[in-house]
Amino acid sequence: MTDTIRVKTHELKEFVKNVFMKVGMSKEQAEITADVLVIADLRGIESHGVARLQRYVDDIKINAIKINAEFKTVVETPVSLLIDANGGIGQMVGYETMKRCIEKARKNYMCFATIRNSNHYGIAGYYTLMALKEKMIGFSFTNSAPLVVPTFGKDAVLGTNPISMGVPTKQERPFLLDMATSTVPRGKVEVYARKGDSMPKTWATDEKGCATTDAKRVLDNLANRKGGGLLPIGGEGMINAGHKGYGLATLVDILCGVFSDGAVGTDVYGKKNQPPEVAHFMGVINPAAFAGQDAIENKMDYFIRLLKHSQLAEGQDRIYIAGEVEYEATEANSVTVPLMKKVLDNLNAIGQNYDLVLKGE
Amino acid sequence: MTDTIRVKTHELKEFVKNVFMKVGMSKEQAEITADVLVIADLRGIESHGVARLQRYVDDIKINAIKINAEFKTVVETPVSLLIDANGGIGQMVGYETMKRCIEKARKNYMCFATIRNSNHYGIAGYYTLMALKEKMIGFSFTNSAPLVVPTFGKDAVLGTNPISMGVPTKQERPFLLDMATSTVPRGKVEVYARKGDSMPKTWATDEKGCATTDAKRVLDNLANRKGGGLLPIGGEGMINAGHKGYGLATLVDILCGVFSDGAVGTDVYGKKNQPPEVAHFMGVINPAAFAGQDAIENKMDYFIRLLKHSQLAEGQDRIYIAGEVEYEATEANSVTVPLMKKVLDNLNAIGQNYDLVLKGE
Repeated sequence: MTDTIRVKTHELKEFVKNVFMKVGMSKEQAEITADVLVIADLRGIESHGVARLQRYVDDIKINAIKINAEFKTVVETPVSLLIDANGGIGQMVGYETMKRCIEKARKNYMCFATIRNSNHYGIAGYYTLMALKEKMIGFSFTNSAPLVVPTFGKDAVLGTNPISMGVPTKQERPFLLDMATSTVPRGKVEVYARKGDSMPKTWATDEKGCATTDAKRVLDNLANRKGGGLLPIGGEGMINAGHKGYGLATLVDILCGVFSDGAVGTDVYGKKNQPPEVAHFMGVINPAAFAGQDAIENKMDYFIRLLKHSQLAEGQDRIYIAGEVEYEATEANSVTVPLMKKVLDNLNAIGQNYDLVLKGE
Repeated sequence: MTDTIRVKTHELKEFVKNVFMKVGMSKEQAEITADVLVIADLRGIESHGVARLQRYVDDIKINAIKINAEFKTVVETPVSLLIDANGGIGQMVGYETMKRCIEKARKNYMCFATIRNSNHYGIAGYYTLMALKEKMIGFSFTNSAPLVVPTFGKDAVLGTNPISMGVPTKQERPFLLDMATSTVPRGKVEVYARKGDSMPKTWATDEKGCATTDAKRVLDNLANRKGGGLLPIGGEGMINAGHKGYGLATLVDILCGVFSDGAVGTDVYGKKNQPPEVAHFMGVINPAAFAGQDAIENKMDYFIRLLKHSQLAEGQDRIYIAGEVEYEATEANSVTVPLMKKVLDNLNAIGQNYDLVLKGE
């Protein structure tokens, strides 16, 4: 990789934590929020990692992220929670709510929570990973800024609304699905725009709502709300099942925005310089609710081996399980982690205001 | 439509029920199993409707569907069930389990159930519809015969593993997602094979595991286990997000086969002339677990209108919500329902053995 510089992982975490403390977060808030961002980089999901630090800092400064917000429990039953984040830090409300879900699932077999009035909470998979650490089954979903067009629609009404599920295993690596319901995230369109490459026709639509290969045009249209946007998984129309990706993106917004009576669709990030009213949905199932810890973990190992040892298609050398690539990246990045040079420069530009420096290797 | 004949809906239901009683089902079993099949036809999902009657009759005769099986509750908590169907009728165990989930969700806010050792249970959406009738939120998933290849894999290891979710509304039609996690069902490949048309390259792979447009070849390979099969949503490889469809198909099999410690992947329909060990997962959420009945129904109406009234892509005249096409079909088919002539002929061939006749209009 050209243009990347490796930094020490623990130094990166420390740096991001210190920046957050300088802009007013408590030590605990800063630690957790930094952890969510850095773990995205370790997992190879740079789009959701420390490259976003500037945005978080800016949002805290204009009070779009309210670091002193109190999270209010609006509804609580033995197996469910509805939390109002009151414009607070997405990572904090996600972390605290997931901890409560784990506790309640330990006692009551499962717990699902819906959260409204939140902010960007980082990678959905962070919260499923929390459940996995406790050998529980985790789920995490969020709505997000409208970038995705409904099937047959011209305008971006839905977010890239990810689906994450994690299931513990015995000897194999856990199953950890964490996928946007759009064919690709905006970041991938940006890569094509920078290089001037043509995109596949299943990724995005132009200002008329028709599939396009022109990445720069799509980004320009999205920035200026001229129409078009990312396509749901399956692409344009119904022939490649784009309506299924659209259905899944809608499902995610229902779990998050509808179940919490929060913001849905274009209401998310609907007001400039205000809290974006992001909504999340997360939950935990205790394996004892079904076949039990051992049986489920053993069957997971069996199923994973069945998939991985099945015959390969011509020219291929490996069948992957959801999460496997990210587990391998995390291991490779445990001591040092690669950052794009411009991301490192940006971190140091932020740090300069607070006498904080992050050195590359 | 050429080659279709309309039959009276109530006569069709009566006919199928009578056939089931003639092959040994009780009146209640026959009524419910017939209802699941006929409702698929009403909804326009012919592949899962009465066209399957012959297969059900044959499976009952060879005892692959055991009509006298007792369903055993293996695990029960206030919010969960693990049921062993003991090779019984898929529709019956689905129906009875969903009824129990509804009851438990009414008392305890939610209930999810996993079922092993079952048979084909018809359309996943039948069970979510049961929850919708009670103004509850419903979920339904099933694994199925291995027809779908993993990303980079050659052999069909996964079923078309559908995802269904239903959410009640106030004035709009309910949201009712019911989608296979393959790009298309096998039935669609059969239509292309009959017509000799080329398929889109996102639908299926050949015996080497490479995307193909040759529908006849795919069916022949599947029938003879020569390799290849249906592609997950997103198609071949990762460029159009096929790995996401593969991840979702895996997720469904985990909910069904792993959570129940039942059969997964190629073990489903793995033994000839034996019960196929299909596994299901279903559940109900009481809106009171989250924002409550009124708030959720009103927000659903709002969200549906937001989507439907957003701008159309060029050349399009309507944005659909999941389930809308099927609700309209059900209304259109309430008095009479269209059957392919060869399906009607086959029904009458079955009926002949029992002095049962079904007349077309």
